[in-house]
Amino acid sequence: MKKAEVFADIRDTLGIVPGFLETLPESLLESEWTTFKNLQLAETAIPNKYKELIGLAVSGATRCQYCTYFHTEAARLFGATEEEIQEASLMAKHTMGWSTYLNAERYDWDTFKREFDQIAAHVRASQAAAV
Amino acid sequence: MKKAEVFADIRDTLGIVPGFLETLPESLLESEWTTFKNLQLAETAIPNKYKELIGLAVSGATRCQYCTYFHTEAARLFGATEEEIQEASLMAKHTMGWSTYLNAERYDWDTFKREFDQIAAHVRASQAAAV
Amino acid sequence: MKKAEVFADIRDTLGIVPGFLETLPESLLESEWTTFKNLQLAETAIPNKYKELIGLAVSGATRCQYCTYFHTEAARLFGATEEEIQEASLMAKHTMGWSTYLNAERYDWDTFKREFDQIAAHVRASQAAAV
Amino acid sequence: MKKAEVFADIRDTLGIVPGFLETLPESLLESEWTTFKNLQLAETAIPNKYKELIGLAVSGATRCQYCTYFHTEAARLFGATEEEIQEASLMAKHTMGWSTYLNAERYDWDTFKREFDQIAAHVRASQAAAV
Amino acid sequence: MKKAEVFADIRDTLGIVPGFLETLPESLLESEWTTFKNLQLAETAIPNKYKELIGLAVSGATRCQYCTYFHTEAARLFGATEEEIQEASLMAKHTMGWSTYLNAERYDWDTFKREFDQIAAHVRASQAAAV
Amino acid sequence: MKKAEVFADIRDTLGIVPGFLETLPESLLESEWTTFKNLQLAETAIPNKYKELIGLAVSGATRCQYCTYFHTEAARLFGATEEEIQEASLMAKHTMGWSTYLNAERYDWDTFKREFDQIAAHVRASQAAAV
Repeated sequence: MKKAEVFADIRDTLGIVPGFLETLPESLLESEWTTFKNLQLAETAIPNKYKELIGLAVSGATRCQYCTYFHTEAARLFGATEEEIQEASLMAKHTMGWSTYLNAERYDWDTFKREFDQIAAHVRASQAAAV
Repeated sequence: MKKAEVFADIRDTLGIVPGFLETLPESLLESEWTTFKNLQLAETAIPNKYKELIGLAVSGATRCQYCTYFHTEAARLFGATEEEIQEASLMAKHTMGWSTYLNAERYDWDTFKREFDQIAAHVRASQAAAV
Repeated sequence: MKKAEVFADIRDTLGIVPGFLETLPESLLESEWTTFKNLQLAETAIPNKYKELIGLAVSGATRCQYCTYFHTEAARLFGATEEEIQEASLMAKHTMGWSTYLNAERYDWDTFKREFDQIAAHVRASQAAAV
Repeated sequence: MKKAEVFADIRDTLGIVPGFLETLPESLLESEWTTFKNLQLAETAIPNKYKELIGLAVSGATRCQYCTYFHTEAARLFGATEEEIQEASLMAKHTMGWSTYLNAERYDWDTFKREFDQIAAHVRASQAAAV
Repeated sequence: MKKAEVFADIRDTLGIVPGFLETLPESLLESEWTTFKNLQLAETAIPNKYKELIGLAVSGATRCQYCTYFHTEAARLFGATEEEIQEASLMAKHTMGWSTYLNAERYDWDTFKREFDQIAAHVRASQAAAV
Repeated sequence: MKKAEVFADIRDTLGIVPGFLETLPESLLESEWTTFKNLQLAETAIPNKYKELIGLAVSGATRCQYCTYFHTEAARLFGATEEEIQEASLMAKHTMGWSTYLNAERYDWDTFKREFDQIAAHVRASQAAAV
């Protein structure tokens, strides 16, 4: 695709060509836009609402103000409730907290895996029993 | 709750008392376990499968081997397909890539917000037209 | 100082010249060693035990296996108990968790500051009353 | 505890119920507050001043403006001097710098451990000789 | 391009189709490969050696063992010397150290900009005088 | 060197003594300045322009507003074009994106190394053939 065609497709999809796409070097413009569109905007295995909540959680954990704004508002566009937005933030908090603890503690890796596998077996048995 | 009661509840839920909970100081044991159980294991606004995919994306973005193992396997326990697990990883990649770019570029914040709001208005209009 | 003198000082202080110092370019060797020695090993405002616990918390939060090993063992050298080591890990967990949440929530900055200042005034009054 | 009781306890301790606690889902309110209070505000193994300096160092290393404000001011409340606050920032700088270097260099892990253990033995011998 | 054509191009360029490209969803395969090839492997404004040293510094700062291996070896492929590889690691150390300090200190932003601008003016004048 | 001599050297080099150097404790002032000057400002193995682009990429990946400003402007001082500055940002984006993906996917380490080594052999052969 030529640059003008990519811009036309972006405009068709987003209404405008935002500056962060417009200024990409021509050798990357089409491929970057294609990934953006096919991953974040298309219907894929994970519904768009949850993809945006994933984006929000990652952005909160890594402190990007552009991205927390983008993914929070995009999640709303795809129907996320305030409760779901907050819960994604709480899962990010929970994940970063425990991951910091396990790394600081230098928790033994083999113990961790063995314990998780025991838990998984227990949960699987409970799920089977509940059917 | 007393320590023994908390341990009994953990054992009832997870099958074992994993070391990372067992060794918590007594003053934090009940509250840490309650948050863990009520946020990550209970039925909440976001289905458990998606909460685990959020945990996986956050862990990949912040490089925690304990947590990528935990959340990948927990997502499987709650029914995630391989395609969903990969897609969560790809959303984490996508989010971290663009967030790094915007921060490195020192993208103008007011421009970013204005552009996003224009995009959101366009998407909302498209969604309304599609109904 | 000449290279040999710096190496002699390192050997005198640490017993050996570890590879990560030995291979530094000569233009940085003395200054890097001086900072290392004067900040981390000398008696300064914060007792060495607590400086190492700070290093451990930072390393856990940013997932460096070299550094969690180093600072945990160095904290023990300076007299830290297992309880203090665990507590530093828990403070790192706590800080990373809440900071992730506030950033994900895009918590209003002015509200945050105003609320903190109110809390600080309350705590100061309580401290004064307790005297 | 009921929500009103938790709020009363928060108000009693902090003077107000800050928004970031007030808006927590009810299923997490008590446990999150209990962890907050029992870890960060109670008398524990590490004096509160040093716990706040740990929080500050972690927050600086992971760039959270809410948290650097909170922990700097809280450290002052618990008696930290300007020199101690600066030193915690310098330890965070030092830790992040070296940890970045070791990771970038892919420093050999076994060498690192062996060297550290030699250093630890030397320091222990020096400490024993100094008694 | 069809999947087979993309794979043929990857094989032609890299000798093999590495698993991390082979398993990408078909909707992203061509675009992800195009970005990879046009940014990292093509002749662009920054010589490939320096692009790899940039990749190495970023990977060391964010602790990715895959990426420090990849970018170190790729830098060597493009002619980087051991001294350049070490220097990239030292610049990553230097940047992460000072950035942690400035954030921990909550250094005043306007002061920072004004001071930098004064320094820049001084350096520009020195450069002009040196011609 | 005495404090006044270090300040004179800083002033001679930078035109001013910026606050972030001026307020360093006296025990670290000379060594911190020496590292700063000998690594970032001196002629070393990597030309200064590329050292600043490395600093910019690292700062974008780790979201430091002080440092993205500093290294972008310093890169310009050392002759970087807008295209080179953007390309450094794009390499940071690329590196952070893929590194997040590989970590989230828990990509097998031995496979990764083996595949990279095959690619490196292929590239080396192509380079030799091209001579």
